Amino acid sequence: MIDQLILKIRETNNPTVVGLDPRFAFIPSRIKEEMLDIYGKTPKAIAKSYLAFNKTIIDEVYDLIPAVKPQIAMYEQLGAVGIQAYIDTITYAKSKGLVIIGDIKRSDIASTAQSYADGHIGLIDIEGEKFEIYKEDFITLNPFLGIDSVKPYFEACKTRNKGLFLLVKTSNPNSGQLQDLKIKNQYLYEYVGGLVSKWGEDMIGKSGFSKIGAVVGATYKEQGIRLRKQMPHTFFLVPGYGAQGATAQDLAGTFNKDGVGSIVNSSRGIIAAYKKDIYAEFGELNFAKASRQAVIDMRDDLNSVL
Amino acid sequence: MIDQLILKIRETNNPTVVGLDPRFAFIPSRIKEEMLDIYGKTPKAIAKSYLAFNKTIIDEVYDLIPAVKPQIAMYEQLGAVGIQAYIDTITYAKSKGLVIIGDIKRSDIASTAQSYADGHIGLIDIEGEKFEIYKEDFITLNPFLGIDSVKPYFEACKTRNKGLFLLVKTSNPNSGQLQDLKIKNQYLYEYVGGLVSKWGEDMIGKSGFSKIGAVVGATYKEQGIRLRKQMPHTFFLVPGYGAQGATAQDLAGTFNKDGVGSIVNSSRGIIAAYKKDIYAEFGELNFAKASRQAVIDMRDDLNSVL
Repeated sequence: MIDQLILKIRETNNPTVVGLDPRFAFIPSRIKEEMLDIYGKTPKAIAKSYLAFNKTIIDEVYDLIPAVKPQIAMYEQLGAVGIQAYIDTITYAKSKGLVIIGDIKRSDIASTAQSYADGHIGLIDIEGEKFEIYKEDFITLNPFLGIDSVKPYFEACKTRNKGLFLLVKTSNPNSGQLQDLKIKNQYLYEYVGGLVSKWGEDMIGKSGFSKIGAVVGATYKEQGIRLRKQMPHTFFLVPGYGAQGATAQDLAGTFNKDGVGSIVNSSRGIIAAYKKDIYAEFGELNFAKASRQAVIDMRDDLNSVL
Repeated sequence: MIDQLILKIRETNNPTVVGLDPRFAFIPSRIKEEMLDIYGKTPKAIAKSYLAFNKTIIDEVYDLIPAVKPQIAMYEQLGAVGIQAYIDTITYAKSKGLVIIGDIKRSDIASTAQSYADGHIGLIDIEGEKFEIYKEDFITLNPFLGIDSVKPYFEACKTRNKGLFLLVKTSNPNSGQLQDLKIKNQYLYEYVGGLVSKWGEDMIGKSGFSKIGAVVGATYKEQGIRLRKQMPHTFFLVPGYGAQGATAQDLAGTFNKDGVGSIVNSSRGIIAAYKKDIYAEFGELNFAKASRQAVIDMRDDLNSVL
């Protein structure tokens, strides 16, 4: 799937992934009121609002982008109805040809990791019948438990053409508290980067990149540059652009000279674009058209530095 | 809730938490066949089997134990129906007076962590109506992203009497790959232990323990002893006993001299006890009675070293 992702980035000329992280405050009143009318003041009304919101945005932007990244927390917090909306969002995005990066950041011991792997990127076997439950193409994982917590996902990567993005240097303000600790002559995030590139060595595709990628926050410019040099065969998922404060210039160093190497996430900056002054002209009714314009502007902004 | 947990441990004289990590292979044919009959070969049949299995075990052991720890991966892998079974398991266990430790090991940036916190241990506000979705008393978290990924959970700990167990030294074979790295004069797990005890300083209850606990694997005896000394006000959730290979002797050092300080998890060893030779006499029909005997044996084994 890493090769397909890179191909789609080339086709759209856009290394952007749209983060589908809906919040109730982002939902236009038209959708919100319709769902509250049908389902009452219930988690189901919110979940259905998120799905309708996502679909409208996907319809407006799918031709411009290679991928979407739903953040499972937004859905999971609503319980079973939320998880259904997460799955339905993925199904819809796939029907539009988009690559799916499930932002789940799971971490657990091997036997438990196997369960996550089966559900998210593998198959669930029920008395001989196989079910794909979540159907993500990629998922994010937290490597704090070491290789045995990550290995159970490799089989699906190899046999089902899936991929992973492992947290190496995250975009949040305090990511350095652990990740920037000094281990002998390197920082912890560099050490983790070294592990991640080693783990992905035997899964390098035609694109020259491995199915095992890394999460590298746009908010840490120098670290991004260092990791890009250190991990030439590792594709980066780069969060932190826009709402979290990073600019295109900050993250340019996570790309190779040929403009390949990363996919940059923006969530609020795109899905809630209509709430920003510069896109206010679209109005709440045309919220998805504001998202489309925000995608175009982000694409052009990124391409101006690549 | 930490004070209530410790009180319940004293009342039952049993520092055991039963891990409700069902697998299809553990489900007795009677339950399995009934559910496959009703729901066909579907994820729902499995989810309903897990719930029925859990309830039967809870009925047989609730008077002997302080708490249960459902592992969300087992349920999540089945999609929305699985998440519903996770929630229904929690609701049932709470109705029997058990403390709930949701083993979710989430990790994310602050805005996302807030969504997990609201859903799992806080409240979801829908146009002024408040919903408790998951209703765990404690949840586990992975601290690899640093304090801003953990802080969003503190409000629910303080205002809603909830608690956390943060990964410090995990029980899996390769946990040392990151956690045992040397940082100046200490290991990473000790450094994380120091952070966790500092983060919990202002949440110490009457029991002398903080609402912010730590996960410390029973499989690492020396590290457990060191952490117990280093973190006198931090309660430990100790996995790794039984199926993962650790003995009561291995984990004795995670307790204080007065026999308080940890709660020890066993999952497969209890819920699938009927599959072990020593409990085979119970037979598949009486699987939950085998679990009851396994709880009694584990309690006596733990108490023999405390």
